[in-house]
Amino acid sequence: MEFTAQQIAAFIHGVVDGNPLAKVSNFSKIEEGTPGTLSFLSNPKYSHFIYDSNASVILVNNDFVPERNVKATLIRVENAYESLAVLLSVIERRKPKKTGTSPLAFISTSTIIGENAYIAPFVFMGENVIVGKNASIHSGCSIEDNVVVGDNVTLYAGVKIYEGSKIGNNCLLHAGAVIGSDGFGFAPTDDGSYRKIPQTGNVILEDNVEIGANTTIDRATLGSTIIRKGVKIDNLVQIAHNVEIGENTVIASQTGISGSTKLGKHCTLAGQVGLAGHLQIADGTVIAAQTGVSNSVKQPNQILMGYPAIPIRNFQRSVVVFKNLPELQRMIYALQQKIDELEKKQQ
Amino acid sequence: MEFTAQQIAAFIHGVVDGNPLAKVSNFSKIEEGTPGTLSFLSNPKYSHFIYDSNASVILVNNDFVPERNVKATLIRVENAYESLAVLLSVIERRKPKKTGTSPLAFISTSTIIGENAYIAPFVFMGENVIVGKNASIHSGCSIEDNVVVGDNVTLYAGVKIYEGSKIGNNCLLHAGAVIGSDGFGFAPTDDGSYRKIPQTGNVILEDNVEIGANTTIDRATLGSTIIRKGVKIDNLVQIAHNVEIGENTVIASQTGISGSTKLGKHCTLAGQVGLAGHLQIADGTVIAAQTGVSNSVKQPNQILMGYPAIPIRNFQRSVVVFKNLPELQRMIYALQQKIDELEKKQQ
Amino acid sequence: MEFTAQQIAAFIHGVVDGNPLAKVSNFSKIEEGTPGTLSFLSNPKYSHFIYDSNASVILVNNDFVPERNVKATLIRVENAYESLAVLLSVIERRKPKKTGTSPLAFISTSTIIGENAYIAPFVFMGENVIVGKNASIHSGCSIEDNVVVGDNVTLYAGVKIYEGSKIGNNCLLHAGAVIGSDGFGFAPTDDGSYRKIPQTGNVILEDNVEIGANTTIDRATLGSTIIRKGVKIDNLVQIAHNVEIGENTVIASQTGISGSTKLGKHCTLAGQVGLAGHLQIADGTVIAAQTGVSNSVKQPNQILMGYPAIPIRNFQRSVVVFKNLPELQRMIYALQQKIDELEKKQQ
Repeated sequence: MEFTAQQIAAFIHGVVDGNPLAKVSNFSKIEEGTPGTLSFLSNPKYSHFIYDSNASVILVNNDFVPERNVKATLIRVENAYESLAVLLSVIERRKPKKTGTSPLAFISTSTIIGENAYIAPFVFMGENVIVGKNASIHSGCSIEDNVVVGDNVTLYAGVKIYEGSKIGNNCLLHAGAVIGSDGFGFAPTDDGSYRKIPQTGNVILEDNVEIGANTTIDRATLGSTIIRKGVKIDNLVQIAHNVEIGENTVIASQTGISGSTKLGKHCTLAGQVGLAGHLQIADGTVIAAQTGVSNSVKQPNQILMGYPAIPIRNFQRSVVVFKNLPELQRMIYALQQKIDELEKKQQ
Repeated sequence: MEFTAQQIAAFIHGVVDGNPLAKVSNFSKIEEGTPGTLSFLSNPKYSHFIYDSNASVILVNNDFVPERNVKATLIRVENAYESLAVLLSVIERRKPKKTGTSPLAFISTSTIIGENAYIAPFVFMGENVIVGKNASIHSGCSIEDNVVVGDNVTLYAGVKIYEGSKIGNNCLLHAGAVIGSDGFGFAPTDDGSYRKIPQTGNVILEDNVEIGANTTIDRATLGSTIIRKGVKIDNLVQIAHNVEIGENTVIASQTGISGSTKLGKHCTLAGQVGLAGHLQIADGTVIAAQTGVSNSVKQPNQILMGYPAIPIRNFQRSVVVFKNLPELQRMIYALQQKIDELEKKQQ
Repeated sequence: MEFTAQQIAAFIHGVVDGNPLAKVSNFSKIEEGTPGTLSFLSNPKYSHFIYDSNASVILVNNDFVPERNVKATLIRVENAYESLAVLLSVIERRKPKKTGTSPLAFISTSTIIGENAYIAPFVFMGENVIVGKNASIHSGCSIEDNVVVGDNVTLYAGVKIYEGSKIGNNCLLHAGAVIGSDGFGFAPTDDGSYRKIPQTGNVILEDNVEIGANTTIDRATLGSTIIRKGVKIDNLVQIAHNVEIGENTVIASQTGISGSTKLGKHCTLAGQVGLAGHLQIADGTVIAAQTGVSNSVKQPNQILMGYPAIPIRNFQRSVVVFKNLPELQRMIYALQQKIDELEKKQQ
């Protein structure tokens, strides 16, 4: 289908800057824009691409000021990235949705499946599983006994959910994610081996949670590991037993949260971050990539970096000096020597 | 079922401190304790919860001295965490165990399956596979040709075991674990591309090993990658080809061990640790989270931290100074200036 | 089968140093060599094993000079590791290859499968999938609609490929790898929650790419995430959306590449490396383990280390001083005091 710049602007409450009749029928990256496509500029790093882009229409933030002529018709909006999301969502919703239960799935007789759900081949559903309406369960998913899966949930291929876990409405779990594996709990014994602490709790994902591919979330020893509503977790993240993640917190790839740590709301953890166990992290905490956090964070809305974590400005100031350390060491030894000489002369 | 504090104390060799007839029928976390439940206090960080907990019975270590009145009946034991493990294990053992082979599994005619095993739907077993008695193989597991799986082994959903690997008795592998994937071995060629070194060895897990969800263990180039008895490995851990992990070593989540490294017995590796290849790590080595180890560790029972790893006390002393670096640099420059002035005056 | 040293030397263009009629019928590690086996010495760390090895024949590099008597017959070659690869490849190619499509696979009627392909039980193939000749698709793989899989591709068990991705010829994907999961893209909304940015692109793997077990590669938001020909990626690696990896680049385990970053050709990333998003990394860049890269690298063929990354020699010089920081701080304070005293005396 084809739309004009004017039609799109009306839909996303934008202002056309250029030819309102410019037509587009597809999307493109700004650096690869071709005629007839709509692109966007959100990250200023990519601004230089806008002047040569052959995209017919480009979404930009209201405050974008071109330094020279732009060929494309611009649509100015408050947030170009969010407007792009709106447009892409329209396209996504038009895709036909598969429904029905494959005869090649294994469904226990005690399982209840909601209306319009799609259950692919080779899906396993244990006893007393409940699956909500409009759920999409892709091939090879394993849903063990007593699991509850909410409405409008998508489980991509090979998601495994252990016994008794609960998945809220509108959750999206990517391929290979594991929910409810045993927490890593062992008590040392006298002979140097370890006795397993049975992990008898479960995992609860509240509504609107997204979980990345091959991410693992362990069940609690007692009670629940809890992922609050709106939390977004990237690929290959580890959430240990008894952890609680506050609402709308975002966790990037390969981050690990150790057992019993409680993260506040609206936190942002970048990639490869590690949090020690039994911590409390205040609301709005932002943690830079590869940071290691070993103490609780009580003051909200701090930005932390380093290993161990300190406020990011302190880390950045120190790390600049780190590069100078060989020179500073040389200076200290030289100063020592000069002072020794000065003292000798004074005697 | 319901038990009195007295009955429980007798079972775990504890001493009742409070009402011996207090009854419990379930477990709870100490901070969420409700009447009729049994809780425990092991980590001193949680001591403050004991005074307000509504749990009816709480396991504590012998040396716990309450600072004020505790409502619950206490049971004093040598190690509260281990006693909890004992009690939870009793419950676990009572759970009904599934048995039998699903007609929806694919079992080669040359495969041998022991008594009382459970083979779920969509399990694949190649040629000449041997599965021990009481094994539980959950849905979607793939067990390639010539694999041996011991007695009492549990493979949760979607475990993949490549050709020729051996899994000892009483092992527990969590969902999505991969055993026996190719080691990462390539030889550079003249045109800048890489020639794959075929990985013709296998992986051996000895008895009583636990492997976390989505953990990967590569097969050896020649011979075996070996995980010795009693080793416990958490989620998302990478064990490269030709590695050997000594008995009762514990490895936390997201740690990676590079090729041909040999870890001793009774080591403890925290999360996100990285070990370079071809190292020897002495028995009893403890490695703090996010540490990078690039040299062999010859002296046993050291605690290491940092990148690159040094003894933890040295790291901690240096890292404290790291925070002061901007101030120290300022001081050095100031000292330099003063000395220059002093020298000038002396001339 | 049995071969003489002479026969093997002829095959790999080597020179026999010892008994040309020494016979071998299998391979062994040098430290575990037994009579009748062929071993190799490539890494100088293992040189000391050669004198006591019971292997009958050992491949060595041309420049190897024994310090004392070696029992085994040596075959001298330009690159022992590469010659081993050649020999192991011969063995590998002799292994019988499974072919045919299991009746327990689910194949859409619109799917096209090439000659001599092997499709294992419980493989799912959506609409309009194309699979090349000689492909091996192991059990539990999920290949969604419109995916193209090239000739001679191997997908080990449980590989999941999302809709529309393209896998080139001769690619090898290890168990549990996920190709084409959604990029991690969300736009914040006014109420503090996040709106998902639909990820409408795909993933392209060019020819001769190897992907490790449980590695995840996200689809692009628009256009493609691209892995160029000859790239080798280890286990548990994260490749985010819109990333491009240049030809013959090698990425070790647990490394993460953030969104839209473009890596050059012939780069080498060690384990647990993290790259921030929207970077450009020059050809031939080498990045040491656990390094965090937060800026683009413009000059090719540099070796980087540290967090944040700096040239490796600078990092190594500074990290040596890091260990001395407590002593240096003490010295600075002492110097300060002495200078204060000197100044006092001068007044």
